[in-house]
Amino acid sequence: MITSSSNNRVKQVVQWQRSSRERQEAGVFLTEGFKMFEEVPAGSVKEVYLSQDAYSKLCTVTALREKLECTGWEIVSDEILRKMSDTQTPQGILLVAGQPHYTPEQLLDVPCPLLVILENIQDPGNLGTIIRTGEGAGVTGVIMSKQTVDLFNPKTIRATMGSVFRVPFFYAESLAEVMKKLHGKGIHTYAAHLEGKEYYDGYSYLEGTAFLIGNEGNGLSRETAELAERYVKIPMEGRVESLNAAVSASILMYEVYRQRRLMREIPKRTCSL
Amino acid sequence: MITSSSNNRVKQVVQWQRSSRERQEAGVFLTEGFKMFEEVPAGSVKEVYLSQDAYSKLCTVTALREKLECTGWEIVSDEILRKMSDTQTPQGILLVAGQPHYTPEQLLDVPCPLLVILENIQDPGNLGTIIRTGEGAGVTGVIMSKQTVDLFNPKTIRATMGSVFRVPFFYAESLAEVMKKLHGKGIHTYAAHLEGKEYYDGYSYLEGTAFLIGNEGNGLSRETAELAERYVKIPMEGRVESLNAAVSASILMYEVYRQRRLMREIPKRTCSL
Repeated sequence: MITSSSNNRVKQVVQWQRSSRERQEAGVFLTEGFKMFEEVPAGSVKEVYLSQDAYSKLCTVTALREKLECTGWEIVSDEILRKMSDTQTPQGILLVAGQPHYTPEQLLDVPCPLLVILENIQDPGNLGTIIRTGEGAGVTGVIMSKQTVDLFNPKTIRATMGSVFRVPFFYAESLAEVMKKLHGKGIHTYAAHLEGKEYYDGYSYLEGTAFLIGNEGNGLSRETAELAERYVKIPMEGRVESLNAAVSASILMYEVYRQRRLMREIPKRTCSL
Repeated sequence: MITSSSNNRVKQVVQWQRSSRERQEAGVFLTEGFKMFEEVPAGSVKEVYLSQDAYSKLCTVTALREKLECTGWEIVSDEILRKMSDTQTPQGILLVAGQPHYTPEQLLDVPCPLLVILENIQDPGNLGTIIRTGEGAGVTGVIMSKQTVDLFNPKTIRATMGSVFRVPFFYAESLAEVMKKLHGKGIHTYAAHLEGKEYYDGYSYLEGTAFLIGNEGNGLSRETAELAERYVKIPMEGRVESLNAAVSASILMYEVYRQRRLMREIPKRTCSL
């Protein structure tokens, strides 16, 4: 059992909690809790730290015990686990997992893509929520500008509720380059913008679709918005000037999903859904 | 200018920041920033505290200067304003506003209502986001169970982005009583529930509509869900088990709004929208 905070592995985990750069260099991220241990593919797990209590509890579930035998583990005292943890009340299990990597082609070369392109989203909770809701709505990939918050931030990972292991993504050096590739592949691009003249639900999204979503304070920059084929607007009653970025993305993604589900019940007219 | 933290009004504001009960007893809430000062109805403002800088800036905008002359104000040193504030970087203006109050009749006796009923939502950000998105989607009122987080929590108020001044709401002693009243008025009630057999977009929401939304960890309690006429489910792809409560509410509210907007363009068949 690890009981000392001067243990090298403990010190390394604490560093990874703090530094996005060090996580990136090691190609890892941290996540906690039983649900995440269930969701993580065994092959992605690099290290597992858990309390004696959590170990005993986990061993009562055959599938989890077998997974643990696959991944290996290390028992840690409660006090040290609290030091290693990002949360006030750690759930007794902390994982070091390998960062998934996807090539742009893995996101673009799929039948009838539904992509979300994020420009400089700053709130880790918003990013995580977009990835979680995106999996629910059948999003095939998330593309982020370089200045978007770190996806491997512990808060983002937590907000994804496990979807981070299943939704392909990449950080783009240049959104202009990405947009050019999308248009080359016939994917229709829509900028979610307050200046849109058409409402989001006035278009058909049965063909390949990508939405550009801007950042919390300022929305999409003009130069990025202008890269899109069309501007779309989410209508708003009352005196509301804008919606939360994760809410806007969710409304758009679920409108696509609604249309595509409806089409499945009607003879297929466009690309295979 | 107030420069001492032993000033009675400063001490009172600090108490109100901390205590939901004291805010409730005084019938007030606190909010900060220029946007909120723009949004608040002048009649609701009880006290205004601002830095010398903020005062000078505000006086350059005629409408705001006139509003300030209506409400009265007090200049406070930057150091004391930081003490009074809930945020790390206060925007130089802090308001004490009167808590709005609505009777159940004000929410229920409207033509073609769209109501959201929240059971025990715990996250202040989620509650604020639901109210903000609700105004955008044309929600006519929000009803909360007694155990729902305090709407006048500074974090909730901030997340509403001003919608708290415009969306009617009340805390219900008993959701069962509320549901009985809704059914008596012919308002259709839908429990957002993972056990729903029908998808949310399979129903018409052109008549009076109310959605029951459960809490973040557990969803709706069985006894509350059973009070609804119907269960509806938001479909989810992949391995997503549930959506964030504010995201779920947003998808449902915007589906109603989508249907009602469509109907406005077609001869009116049901209640006047």
